[in-house]
Amino acid sequence: MKTASEYATLSPEMQSRMDAYWRAANYLSVGQIYLLDNPLLNEPLALEHIKPRLLGHWGTTPGLNFIHVHLNRLIKAHDLNMIFICGPGHGGPAMVANAWLEGTYSERYPNVSLDREGMRALFKQFSFPGGVPSHVAPETPGSIHEGGELGYALSHAYGAVFDNPDLIACCVVGDGEAETGPLAASWHSNKFLNPARDGAVLPILHLNGYKIANPTILSRIDQDELIKLFEGYGYRPYLVEGSDPAAVHPRMAEALDRCLDEIRAIQQTVRSGQSWSRPKWPMIILRTPKGWTGPESVDGKKTEDFWRSHQVPLANLADNPAHIEMLEQWFLSYRPEELFDAQGTPKPELLELAPRGQRRISDNPHANGGVLLRDLRLPDFRDYALEIPAPGAVEAEATRVMGKFLRDVMRGNLEQRNFRIFGPDETASNRWDAVFEATPRVWEEKILPEDTDLARDGRVMEILSEHTCQGWLEGYLLTGRHGFFSCYEAFIHIVDSMFNQHAKWLKTCNHIPWRRPIASLNYLLTSHVWRQDHNGFSHQDPGFIDHVVNKKAEVVRVYFPPDANTLLSVTDHVLRSRNYVNVVVAGKQPAPQWLTMDQAIKHCHAGIGVWEWASNDLGKEPDVVMACAGDVPTLETLAAVDILRTQIPDLKIRVINVVDLMKLQPPGEHPHGLSDRDFEQLFTSDKPIVFAYHGYPWLIHRLTYRRPNHENLHVRGYKEEGTTSTPFDMVVMNDIDRFHLAIDVIDRVPRLKERAVYLKQYFKGKLIDHKHYIRIHGEDMPEIREWKWPAETAGLQMQAG
Amino acid sequence: MKTASEYATLSPEMQSRMDAYWRAANYLSVGQIYLLDNPLLNEPLALEHIKPRLLGHWGTTPGLNFIHVHLNRLIKAHDLNMIFICGPGHGGPAMVANAWLEGTYSERYPNVSLDREGMRALFKQFSFPGGVPSHVAPETPGSIHEGGELGYALSHAYGAVFDNPDLIACCVVGDGEAETGPLAASWHSNKFLNPARDGAVLPILHLNGYKIANPTILSRIDQDELIKLFEGYGYRPYLVEGSDPAAVHPRMAEALDRCLDEIRAIQQTVRSGQSWSRPKWPMIILRTPKGWTGPESVDGKKTEDFWRSHQVPLANLADNPAHIEMLEQWFLSYRPEELFDAQGTPKPELLELAPRGQRRISDNPHANGGVLLRDLRLPDFRDYALEIPAPGAVEAEATRVMGKFLRDVMRGNLEQRNFRIFGPDETASNRWDAVFEATPRVWEEKILPEDTDLARDGRVMEILSEHTCQGWLEGYLLTGRHGFFSCYEAFIHIVDSMFNQHAKWLKTCNHIPWRRPIASLNYLLTSHVWRQDHNGFSHQDPGFIDHVVNKKAEVVRVYFPPDANTLLSVTDHVLRSRNYVNVVVAGKQPAPQWLTMDQAIKHCHAGIGVWEWASNDLGKEPDVVMACAGDVPTLETLAAVDILRTQIPDLKIRVINVVDLMKLQPPGEHPHGLSDRDFEQLFTSDKPIVFAYHGYPWLIHRLTYRRPNHENLHVRGYKEEGTTSTPFDMVVMNDIDRFHLAIDVIDRVPRLKERAVYLKQYFKGKLIDHKHYIRIHGEDMPEIREWKWPAETAGLQMQAG
Repeated sequence: MKTASEYATLSPEMQSRMDAYWRAANYLSVGQIYLLDNPLLNEPLALEHIKPRLLGHWGTTPGLNFIHVHLNRLIKAHDLNMIFICGPGHGGPAMVANAWLEGTYSERYPNVSLDREGMRALFKQFSFPGGVPSHVAPETPGSIHEGGELGYALSHAYGAVFDNPDLIACCVVGDGEAETGPLAASWHSNKFLNPARDGAVLPILHLNGYKIANPTILSRIDQDELIKLFEGYGYRPYLVEGSDPAAVHPRMAEALDRCLDEIRAIQQTVRSGQSWSRPKWPMIILRTPKGWTGPESVDGKKTEDFWRSHQVPLANLADNPAHIEMLEQWFLSYRPEELFDAQGTPKPELLELAPRGQRRISDNPHANGGVLLRDLRLPDFRDYALEIPAPGAVEAEATRVMGKFLRDVMRGNLEQRNFRIFGPDETASNRWDAVFEATPRVWEEKILPEDTDLARDGRVMEILSEHTCQGWLEGYLLTGRHGFFSCYEAFIHIVDSMFNQHAKWLKTCNHIPWRRPIASLNYLLTSHVWRQDHNGFSHQDPGFIDHVVNKKAEVVRVYFPPDANTLLSVTDHVLRSRNYVNVVVAGKQPAPQWLTMDQAIKHCHAGIGVWEWASNDLGKEPDVVMACAGDVPTLETLAAVDILRTQIPDLKIRVINVVDLMKLQPPGEHPHGLSDRDFEQLFTSDKPIVFAYHGYPWLIHRLTYRRPNHENLHVRGYKEEGTTSTPFDMVVMNDIDRFHLAIDVIDRVPRLKERAVYLKQYFKGKLIDHKHYIRIHGEDMPEIREWKWPAETAGLQMQAG
Repeated sequence: MKTASEYATLSPEMQSRMDAYWRAANYLSVGQIYLLDNPLLNEPLALEHIKPRLLGHWGTTPGLNFIHVHLNRLIKAHDLNMIFICGPGHGGPAMVANAWLEGTYSERYPNVSLDREGMRALFKQFSFPGGVPSHVAPETPGSIHEGGELGYALSHAYGAVFDNPDLIACCVVGDGEAETGPLAASWHSNKFLNPARDGAVLPILHLNGYKIANPTILSRIDQDELIKLFEGYGYRPYLVEGSDPAAVHPRMAEALDRCLDEIRAIQQTVRSGQSWSRPKWPMIILRTPKGWTGPESVDGKKTEDFWRSHQVPLANLADNPAHIEMLEQWFLSYRPEELFDAQGTPKPELLELAPRGQRRISDNPHANGGVLLRDLRLPDFRDYALEIPAPGAVEAEATRVMGKFLRDVMRGNLEQRNFRIFGPDETASNRWDAVFEATPRVWEEKILPEDTDLARDGRVMEILSEHTCQGWLEGYLLTGRHGFFSCYEAFIHIVDSMFNQHAKWLKTCNHIPWRRPIASLNYLLTSHVWRQDHNGFSHQDPGFIDHVVNKKAEVVRVYFPPDANTLLSVTDHVLRSRNYVNVVVAGKQPAPQWLTMDQAIKHCHAGIGVWEWASNDLGKEPDVVMACAGDVPTLETLAAVDILRTQIPDLKIRVINVVDLMKLQPPGEHPHGLSDRDFEQLFTSDKPIVFAYHGYPWLIHRLTYRRPNHENLHVRGYKEEGTTSTPFDMVVMNDIDRFHLAIDVIDRVPRLKERAVYLKQYFKGKLIDHKHYIRIHGEDMPEIREWKWPAETAGLQMQAG
C-alpha cells in the first residue's frame, strides 16, 4: 500500500483540465434541461431560446458529472474496463452529456454531432417530444440501468460483474435510493462476490443530502453511525466531502486511487492462490451539495445544497425575466468559451481526457450485453425424458426432472461461465437439487464442516431477498449472460415492480437498432398456489401472471407445462429465446405424467392442442370441451373426464390442454395468438367449454372475450380461497376439483338435462364425503389420492392416435 | 443505570419454573405438529396417534417459545403493556401454544379448553382441514402479523407503537427475514420514533443460523461486523447466545431487564422535558440453535442447530418405526408429567407465570385494534367544495383541494392522536402540502435552520421506502388507528405483495367474530400514468388496480373521482369505511372541474351515472354511449363530445362517468355491482359504447364480459406506450385522446357511415397537426391546451337538468 503522500496524484494542470471537463458536462446538462436554441450563447439568452416546458432533474446531475470525469481519469490512467451504474438515473442529462463528450453519442446518433448543430440537437431532444426521455434510458449509450424506480442500482452492478473478472462496475447510490428496501438489502451482495472469478463493484454512496422535498436519512445521521453502518455491511468506506470543487477534486482522485489499489490488491491476493477470507471491499461516501454549481438561491429561497434544486431550480421563465438573466449567468459561470470552440466542438484538451474506444463508459460493450452474448451450450433435453408407457402411469416431480436438465446446462457452460441460477433460498425446496451435482451455492462467508452445497465458487445464487435475486439476474442478463430464477409463485409479487421496469427496458430496446438482443429473463414459478401444503393462505397467489400480461405482448410469454416432459421442452425453448420475460409455472410435487417426449414436443410446439387420448369425440363435434392450463387443473380435468365417461358413457368430451397461454389471445394482440379459425376449430362455435385454469379465472376471459364461442366459456380457477389444508381440499374450496368440473359440464350440456339432478346429486355426495373424510383423517380420500387415468382406455387411444 | 450484578435477577426457582413453562410450550408445539391423539402420551406413542400429513415449521418455534416466556416474566414484573410481533410467523405453533397456556385460546375458542380434551383439539386442529393454519394468522389471538411473507415485522412493530406511548412492541426478526429488502430498510424506523409521544420497539434479531436450506448471512459474518451494522443502524445491541438453556435463561433475563431499563430511561429523559437527541434504542441479538431441544440428528444427519430442522425434523413415520420412538423420546424430554396434571391442565405454578387479563400477549387489545378504534372527527367535506359556475369553467389541482380537507382532518384529530399520513417523500409533490399547516413531517435527526416542515412531533411520515410506509401504516391501522398513503401510481407496485397480505388478513378477519373491524387502508394514487411530465416510461403504470381487483370483492374498492369535488366526497367516504382497501386514483395537475358539490355527492353516492349536462340524448336512446373513468379520460371524453357535437350536431351522445369501478361488476361478484337491468339502462342494450379508461383497457372487459351489450363495448386505455412527452401526446400515443375517441365513435355509429370518411379525415388531420406542432414547439397545440367545455351549452343543460 502506498503512503498518503503517494496518493497526491492530481497535478494542478490535470485538475484544471478535469474541472473544465466537469464544467463542460454541467454546461451541457443545464443546456439539455433549458435550451431549445442558442446552445453556445452566441446571442444574449432570450425566452425564445428556452423550452416552454422545463422537465428534468438538475439536483443529482452535477455530482454525477463530477464522478464521471474522475472515473475517466482512473480508466485512462489504468486502462480499466469499467461500467457506470447510475442509481440516480433520473439525472439523465449527466449520462447523455458525458456520452456526447466521449463521442459515443454522435456515433450512435449521427444527427447529434460533436459541434454546435449537434449540441443544439442534443439540447432540444432532451425531454422533448420525439426526443429522448429525461432519465438515463435504453436510448442512453453506456447504460444498463434506468434509475427511475429506485432500489436496484447495486444489485444490477453486482450482477454485471459476476463472472467478469476484469470488469469494475462503479455504482452510484443516491442517498434517496439508499432508503429503499431493495437497496438496503443489496449491500450484502459482497458476501456473494468471489474476487478470483468475479470483477469488482465500487459503490459510491452519494450524499447530496436531499430527496424531492426532504433531507435524507443517511446524510443526517452522525458520521460515526454512518461509517459503522457500512463497515457493518462489510465495506471499507472512504469519505470524500466538500463543496469547493478545488478542494474536492484532489480528495476524490485520491479516494479513487486508493479504492482501485485496494481492489487490485484484493484480486491479486486471491488470484495468486493465497488463502483469504471475504475481503472488505472499498467504497466511497461522497458528500457534495445537491444542485452543486447551480443557483445558490432563487427568489430568496435556498436552492443549491437543498431539496429545491431537485428538478428545475429556475422555473416560470416566461413570467420572470430576472430568472432568464440568472439562467444566463448560470451558463456563463461554466465559462463555455474555455470549453468549446467557435464551432461548438469541445476543445481538444478536454476530449483528450476521455478514454478511447470501448474503454469509454458510454461505449463499454458490457453495457450493451447483447454484443457479448454467447449461446448456451445446451444438452439435448430429450435425453432427460421420462418414459411414459401410458398417460398417468408414472408419477414424477416435474421440477426435479427439470433440475437434472439444468444441472447439465450448468455443466456444459462451466467453462463459458455464462449461466447461473438464482432463488431466495428455494433451489432445493423447488427440487432443483440436481444442479448441486454440477455446482454448489456461492458463499463467501465461513463454511462449516456440516454445510452442504456451499462453496466460494458456486454458481447457484441464494439470498432470502427476491429483490436481490432479481437485481443480480437482471444485471447478469443485461451484460450478456444467461440465467433462471426459481421462486415460490406467491412471492414473485415481491418483484412485480422490478419486472415492470425490466419489461419496459426490453420493450424500448426492441426499437433501438444498436441495442443487441439479450437472453430472456426466465422465471420458474413453483411451490404454487395449489400445493402450499406447509403454509397456507399467505402463500397462495397466482396473480403474477395477470401482472405480466399487462406488459407489451412483444416481450412477455407465459407457459403452463402440465408435466415433466413438457416442462423440459419449455425449458429448452426459453433458454434459447431472447429479449423476453418467460414465466414458466410448474409444480414440484409428485404428480401423474401424461405425455411421452414426442407428444410433449409436438404439444409445446403447438402451444395448445386436443389431447385425443383423453377425448372421446373422435374428431367429431363434442358435447363439451374441457380445457385446462396448469398441472393441477389438468389433473382435475382428466379425473373429471374419467368420472364423466364412467357415469355417462355416451357423453362426447374434447380435452384441450394449454401450455402457451398467449395462444388464447387474438393474433392482433399477441404474436403467439391462434387465428380465430384455429381457435374455433379447437373450441367449437357453439359447444360449452369448461376451462380449468391455474390462476385467477377472469384472466382467461380477458384473453378471450373477443373470441368465437366466448359466451359459452366457463372458467374455474383460484378465487382467493385457501388455508392450510389437503391438496384436494384446496381445489374443492375453489370449485376447480373434478366433481365441481363434472357438475359444470352437466349444467351446460343440454341433452343431460333429464339426468342432471341425479348426476349432480352423485357428485355433490362425493364432495360431502370428501369434507367428512378429511376432517376425520386429515388427508384426502383414497379414491382421490389413488386415482389414476384408466390405463386400458388410454393405451387403446394412444395407439389409435 | 444498574451495575452488572444488579441485573442477576433470575432466582434459581424462577428460572426453573420458566424453563418448565418453556418446556410446556415446546411440548405443545411439537404436539401440534405431530399429534392427532394421545396428547399426554398416556399410552405408548403409536402411528395412529400421529397425523398422516406432517405440516409446520419446527425450526424457529423453540426460540419463539423461549422469548415468549421471558417476555411474560418482564411483563409481569413491570406490569408492561406489550405486544409481540412474531416475524417468523410460520412458527405458528409457538404463538398458539402460548395463547393456550395464557388461557386466551380457550376464551376465544371454548372447545379448545385448558385440559386434556382441549389439548387434543389444540393438537389436532393445527394445519388440519377445518382447523387453523400452520402460521400465526388472524385466527391466532395476540397477533397482528402473519409472517409468511417475510420482511414487514419491524415496520409493523413501529406502526403499532406510534402514538401509543405506553406500548412496547417486542419484535422478533428472524435472520432469514433480516436478509429481505423491506426489513433491511425498516431498521431506520428508529429515526421516526418520538420517545415522548410514541411507545418503544424492542427488536430481537433471532440468529438461529439457517433458512430453509442455507445458513443466514447475519449468523455467519464476524461479530465485529454484526455489532457495527446495528450500531450503524442506530441501535445499542445486546448479545445473548448459547445452546444450554440453563446458561441462556439468565443471560436473556438480564438482557431484557437492561433493555427495559434503557427504554424507560430514554422515555423518562425525553418526557421530563430535558433536551435530547435521537436515542440509541436497545435491541437484542439472540443466537440460539435452530430447532433447539429437537432431535440432534436424524438418520445420521445433523438436525438440531441446522437447516434440517426448518420444518418437520422427523418425517415418514409410517415407514420408520424408529422415528416414532425418537418422537416419543422427544416429547418425553420435556418431562410432561412435571408440566400438566392428569387432566391435561398445565400445573398452577406454570399458569401463574403468565400475565393476567389484557396484559397477556395473547389478549393485548392493541393486537385486535378494532376494539380500540375511535372514529375520526371529520370536518364537513362540503366546506372544502370548489364553486363550479359551469362545468369546466374552473381549473384546480384536485389533490391540493383534498390536502386542505386532510389538513383539517389532521387538526381535528390531533388530540385523539389517531391519524397520520404516509408517503415516500411525495406529500408535497402530490399537493397535500396544506397538511403541513396542521402538522409537519416527523424527523428525529438533526434539523437545520433552512429545513421546512420537519419536526420531532410531526405526523406526516415520509421515508423513501414504499415498503416502510406501507408497513408502518398497516401496523398503525391494525392497532386501531387511521391513515392515508399517497404514492406515485407506478411505484405502488413496489408494495403489491404487501397489499396482498393485508387484503388476505382482512378477508380472513371478516370471518372471525372476535376480530373487530379496523379502519380501511386508504391509498391515493396520483402523479399517475398520464401526467408523469418530469419522468417517463418507467413512471407510467396503472396496473395496481388490476392487481387489487384480484383480491376478494368484500375487501377491495377502487375509485376514480374525476375532479376535486368528487375527490372530496370519496375521501370522506373512505375515511369512514372499515376493513377495506380503498384505492383512490386522482390527478395532481391543474385540470378542469366538472361537478358542483351537490352533483358530486349525488354522483359519488351512485358511483356511476349519466352526465346529463354533457349528453344530448335527452333521456332517449342515444346513438352512442361515451363512458369514462379517471380524470384524464373524462377530460378527453368531454373534449371528444364537444368536437363531435360541433361536427355532427344531430349525433345523440350519452356521457357516463364512472367513479366507483366496482359498479361495473355483476352484483354476484361485487357487492357494489349494478344490477344487469340498471347496467342496461345506462349502457343500452345495443348501442355502441366507447369507454375511455384510466388504466389497462382489458380490465373493463374483465369486469363486464357477462354484461348486456358487452359485444358493443370498445375500451381505450393505457396500452403501455409512453416516454417523456407532452400531456396530450401521452394520450395520443395510447389512442385515448379526443380525436381517436371521436374516430372510434364514427366507426361505430351506423348512420354516420356515409360521412365517416370525411369526418375521420378531419380528425386524423388534427392528429397530424398535433405531432407536427409538438415536435417544433415542445408543448401542446393551443387549441388543446386552451380547450374548454362550451359554457353556454353546458349552462343551459345544467338548468334543464
